[in-house]
Amino acid sequence: MKYKVAVLGATGMVGQKFIQLLENHPWFEISALMASERRVGKAYGDEVEWLISSDVPENVRDMEMLPMDPRNVDADIVFSALPADIAREVEPKFAQEGFAVASNASAFRMEEDVPLVIPEVNAEHLGLIDVQKRNRGWDGFIVTNPNCTTIMLVLTLKPLLDLGLAKVNVATMQALSGAGYPGVPSMSVIDNVLPFIRGEEDKVETEPLKLLGKFTGSGIDFASITVSASCHRVPVIDGHLEAVFAEFGGNIEVNDVIEAFRSFKPIEGLPTSPEEVIVVRDEPDRPQPRLDRDAGNGMSVVVGRVRKDGDSGIKYLVLGHNTVRGAAGASILNAELMVKEKLI
Amino acid sequence: MKYKVAVLGATGMVGQKFIQLLENHPWFEISALMASERRVGKAYGDEVEWLISSDVPENVRDMEMLPMDPRNVDADIVFSALPADIAREVEPKFAQEGFAVASNASAFRMEEDVPLVIPEVNAEHLGLIDVQKRNRGWDGFIVTNPNCTTIMLVLTLKPLLDLGLAKVNVATMQALSGAGYPGVPSMSVIDNVLPFIRGEEDKVETEPLKLLGKFTGSGIDFASITVSASCHRVPVIDGHLEAVFAEFGGNIEVNDVIEAFRSFKPIEGLPTSPEEVIVVRDEPDRPQPRLDRDAGNGMSVVVGRVRKDGDSGIKYLVLGHNTVRGAAGASILNAELMVKEKLI
Amino acid sequence: MKYKVAVLGATGMVGQKFIQLLENHPWFEISALMASERRVGKAYGDEVEWLISSDVPENVRDMEMLPMDPRNVDADIVFSALPADIAREVEPKFAQEGFAVASNASAFRMEEDVPLVIPEVNAEHLGLIDVQKRNRGWDGFIVTNPNCTTIMLVLTLKPLLDLGLAKVNVATMQALSGAGYPGVPSMSVIDNVLPFIRGEEDKVETEPLKLLGKFTGSGIDFASITVSASCHRVPVIDGHLEAVFAEFGGNIEVNDVIEAFRSFKPIEGLPTSPEEVIVVRDEPDRPQPRLDRDAGNGMSVVVGRVRKDGDSGIKYLVLGHNTVRGAAGASILNAELMVKEKLI
Amino acid sequence: MKYKVAVLGATGMVGQKFIQLLENHPWFEISALMASERRVGKAYGDEVEWLISSDVPENVRDMEMLPMDPRNVDADIVFSALPADIAREVEPKFAQEGFAVASNASAFRMEEDVPLVIPEVNAEHLGLIDVQKRNRGWDGFIVTNPNCTTIMLVLTLKPLLDLGLAKVNVATMQALSGAGYPGVPSMSVIDNVLPFIRGEEDKVETEPLKLLGKFTGSGIDFASITVSASCHRVPVIDGHLEAVFAEFGGNIEVNDVIEAFRSFKPIEGLPTSPEEVIVVRDEPDRPQPRLDRDAGNGMSVVVGRVRKDGDSGIKYLVLGHNTVRGAAGASILNAELMVKEKLI
Repeated sequence: MKYKVAVLGATGMVGQKFIQLLENHPWFEISALMASERRVGKAYGDEVEWLISSDVPENVRDMEMLPMDPRNVDADIVFSALPADIAREVEPKFAQEGFAVASNASAFRMEEDVPLVIPEVNAEHLGLIDVQKRNRGWDGFIVTNPNCTTIMLVLTLKPLLDLGLAKVNVATMQALSGAGYPGVPSMSVIDNVLPFIRGEEDKVETEPLKLLGKFTGSGIDFASITVSASCHRVPVIDGHLEAVFAEFGGNIEVNDVIEAFRSFKPIEGLPTSPEEVIVVRDEPDRPQPRLDRDAGNGMSVVVGRVRKDGDSGIKYLVLGHNTVRGAAGASILNAELMVKEKLI
Repeated sequence: MKYKVAVLGATGMVGQKFIQLLENHPWFEISALMASERRVGKAYGDEVEWLISSDVPENVRDMEMLPMDPRNVDADIVFSALPADIAREVEPKFAQEGFAVASNASAFRMEEDVPLVIPEVNAEHLGLIDVQKRNRGWDGFIVTNPNCTTIMLVLTLKPLLDLGLAKVNVATMQALSGAGYPGVPSMSVIDNVLPFIRGEEDKVETEPLKLLGKFTGSGIDFASITVSASCHRVPVIDGHLEAVFAEFGGNIEVNDVIEAFRSFKPIEGLPTSPEEVIVVRDEPDRPQPRLDRDAGNGMSVVVGRVRKDGDSGIKYLVLGHNTVRGAAGASILNAELMVKEKLI
Repeated sequence: MKYKVAVLGATGMVGQKFIQLLENHPWFEISALMASERRVGKAYGDEVEWLISSDVPENVRDMEMLPMDPRNVDADIVFSALPADIAREVEPKFAQEGFAVASNASAFRMEEDVPLVIPEVNAEHLGLIDVQKRNRGWDGFIVTNPNCTTIMLVLTLKPLLDLGLAKVNVATMQALSGAGYPGVPSMSVIDNVLPFIRGEEDKVETEPLKLLGKFTGSGIDFASITVSASCHRVPVIDGHLEAVFAEFGGNIEVNDVIEAFRSFKPIEGLPTSPEEVIVVRDEPDRPQPRLDRDAGNGMSVVVGRVRKDGDSGIKYLVLGHNTVRGAAGASILNAELMVKEKLI
Repeated sequence: MKYKVAVLGATGMVGQKFIQLLENHPWFEISALMASERRVGKAYGDEVEWLISSDVPENVRDMEMLPMDPRNVDADIVFSALPADIAREVEPKFAQEGFAVASNASAFRMEEDVPLVIPEVNAEHLGLIDVQKRNRGWDGFIVTNPNCTTIMLVLTLKPLLDLGLAKVNVATMQALSGAGYPGVPSMSVIDNVLPFIRGEEDKVETEPLKLLGKFTGSGIDFASITVSASCHRVPVIDGHLEAVFAEFGGNIEVNDVIEAFRSFKPIEGLPTSPEEVIVVRDEPDRPQPRLDRDAGNGMSVVVGRVRKDGDSGIKYLVLGHNTVRGAAGASILNAELMVKEKLI
């Protein structure tokens, strides 16, 4: 018996990735797809501009899309791939009616009583669910995952916290799929780089402080590190690459950092979890988006070029698949964690 | 009457740019092209894999290539677009025989008695020429320009020195032409980013300290700032984009930085000099390589997104044309400065 | 004294090219820019998403955009860069009020009394202007230029007509700028080719028959050749490349074809006319979009790889700049021809 | 018990694809990798510039490379990914010593007694093996597969033969992986198309005549159709797209062509064979390289836009994965056919 899952915003770039990752999921089975008014009643396969492989999966091709109304939906979990402004309206309706909403949207990430979770980083923040239900009088709840760029970064910052991490500068080279579809016009990005992604730097600078913070029983004590980001779009289909300059409180050695990365453990027993959370590569020219984005089926992050930066600094690169580990896969992993923790 | 100039290594990517920039130069006229043994005696137009426009300029198309031997060359100035290892052997022979060598090669940049010069930044370092001639007993001399990535960066750091600049982290997104030809295989960089450029980070971290240093009469007192670089190759034909995180000794305001950039003056009277050294753009999404690399005929650098980074930090992006301001144009501007200063 | 010219649809991709080509035009000077309702009253420089170089030209940056209404416009010539559906409504209003409309839109190209003109190919078709004015009772008139892909092709077919040209198969590799802005999403075309361009093949198969037809005094007798097209979009910014298979009525030799191409003459005295209409290159690997699109300032077409295809066939490639020779430059050349012919 | 297979030329682009496709092959198991002198004795994983996924497969990572000498090799089948000039020397040595050589090289494809085979097209040509062994006195033999571009084309021409196919013009848009590694320099192909591929058109024009010919018992009677090709390289990683203009002896209807494509059957029981040899898509904008190259695990070809071209012509597009169906997969499928036919 599988859990029934529904997807909000199923036709977009991240929505498509939800569909693909859920196609043969051992625990979850798609029971409903919800879309905007103009698509309601139409078959998913007829409406979607399917861009991630040859064909729309058979299990959803003829599925009729439903309105974004909890009364129509039969599901145990609702995944949300909605844009932030629509998520802000729609997700609470589902949470109120008792659904577990696993959201990739940014709308509620920074709300005090909403868990912002990466399972390997801060599973204990799920404790906020009770706070949230009490605060809001909801039968269900919302759990969010971070921004794609934040996720790759924070997966590598977590193991560095105990080594005295104090300050991070990060410059990103982000993939086009992160902008959705139609997203970035080709005229804007062939033989070019776009040095700006609206709202991105703010997310990358604030979300890590919550993620790396401590759950107090009633809220989150934010981590006291500083993150500064410069975000850029490059002509790459999938895979965000990030150049990290990490400052520590005192002396730091490359080997200790690599050891910390390699010792960082996945959560046992989650089907979408990779075997290695952080793959550390030794070659001088890795990670590369085209070669490394599918590591661990897109759920590992790949680190390379770990090197000294003065006495108390370390530089490295990290790469992850932005629509898998950075979006749909992140929400699904959160849902799996909630199942394991018997929250669903 | 124009000065006669010769070009060492004329068939490569930077060599081609020398040819193009010198085609209608008001002061200089190409008198000789020198190449490796296998090309000697052949017409330039037959040998070069011309990649920067429709046709090889007529003034050099039928010019026979000479060996890299000072005895064959009739020229006032020798421009060098050689690789470092060959430059190390060949350039001293020309300097010894009395030629003024304006070199883009890295071979001698960091030697104590060799000027490493960007005219707008440290023209006074040309004072090292006398030291060099005395030290080495040469009739001529070598003057070098920095690495392409260094140049864009340092043109923006110079005006920040008086504002208390202390530390710089820079992450680069560099163009393919910087790797020469055949250079980066297409299979390596379509839908991809290469997170490593051999030797680049070391140059970007050390050359600025010399460039921003003080000429003492007999040598250079290096600047005491710190530069840390992470260098990456993106699928862009021309134009290096750099994300800069600059730390200052104390509080710093965006307006002061922009004002410093805009007040930074070109050297008067040099034909290759741009009207504006630093173009500061206000749009949120500039500079972009494809749109901004030709600013000031490729000799301006373009800055954008100047923003606060904590109390004592500033972030910004800078872009410049890597084979013009970053290579051939840099050497030519140095030669123009030397003419103006009556060193030639 | 220059002619005053106005531009309809000035903010699009082709509109921008009109602005750029007219910036320093010796005969024409921009007196008005007309745009859709929502842009009226706003400064051109504030509204346009300028994509073809660093900055919007100064002569139009602050020009207020006018509605598309002939009563507001003071101009001798009206250039139209409108989409076909809007052109169909707007252009006749201007023609009726006495304006000479030089249109790049497809709306009226195939109308019996509307000249479809490439100056070097069928200047005498301008004789249709009188027919048109008589037919429609207009004070002014509309003259059109062909589709971009048609233009490159027909410039090479015209000199082949006398050699017995009978049938043409053409497969195109077209640039992204031809789809306008935002146009083709980057997700659709990075590491990809789009094998379909709506409406394109029909235009390429029909327009040449009119262009190569004979003006009878009252209409056009269409040429009796056959053209079949397969049109594709490739990840190239500018420059349409076309692979042509030409069948002749009998034996044909490569040298005769090359001789016919090289003998094809420009119209004397038109400022935008290139020195060579057809540049024939001998290298085995030309023409290439990036290297050859700017030949003759984008007004030449470049031919290469002319080779036998059986006894009575010839294969070759032709390339031209799609927004210059293929659009804005085409309309401007037509207007120059009309001035020379004293039709304006 | 699996057959032991060896790979000649295992480090190149096609060699890597052999390794990948053979990793979990149900019938074949890699027993040896042979390489050029300078690689002999080194581990495959240390030598290869692995470009097709994250990591070199474990089963060959530490395999020591052997010289290209039959005395060293223990294998039932030898796959050859050698360049033509080396293949010409090396492959006969293996055939003479009794090996079954399944070659992707062009060296022997057009020799009278060497089968050039696509299983679904001309399996009966394997009858030439006996002729070859007799002629040459070899214990083993060479079987070849066609050029990658030929394969996609001929798979679609075969079902059209009975409909009266007479003449084919084909214009190709070929992927970069077809040029090997380092292959095409990125400076040559970003924002560009290369209109020439050395030797390619000749192969595409001659190989189909042999493939579609009849085995007479002692040789092949070539098919009497005509093929003319124009071959071009586009910035796509994998997947050759071909625009086909097919002329028939008389009237031809789209439905008959589509029916012929859909009825074209795979060989039963070969593990690498796709379920559908020709996938016909109805969408107006397919096939596309990025979306369709992996159809049938890269072994299907995908056809789209089948449309009339006059009374007796049909136009369509065909796409296939050039290093799978067009190279390594083609050789492997040939080997599987030979096993099925008990020739090995």
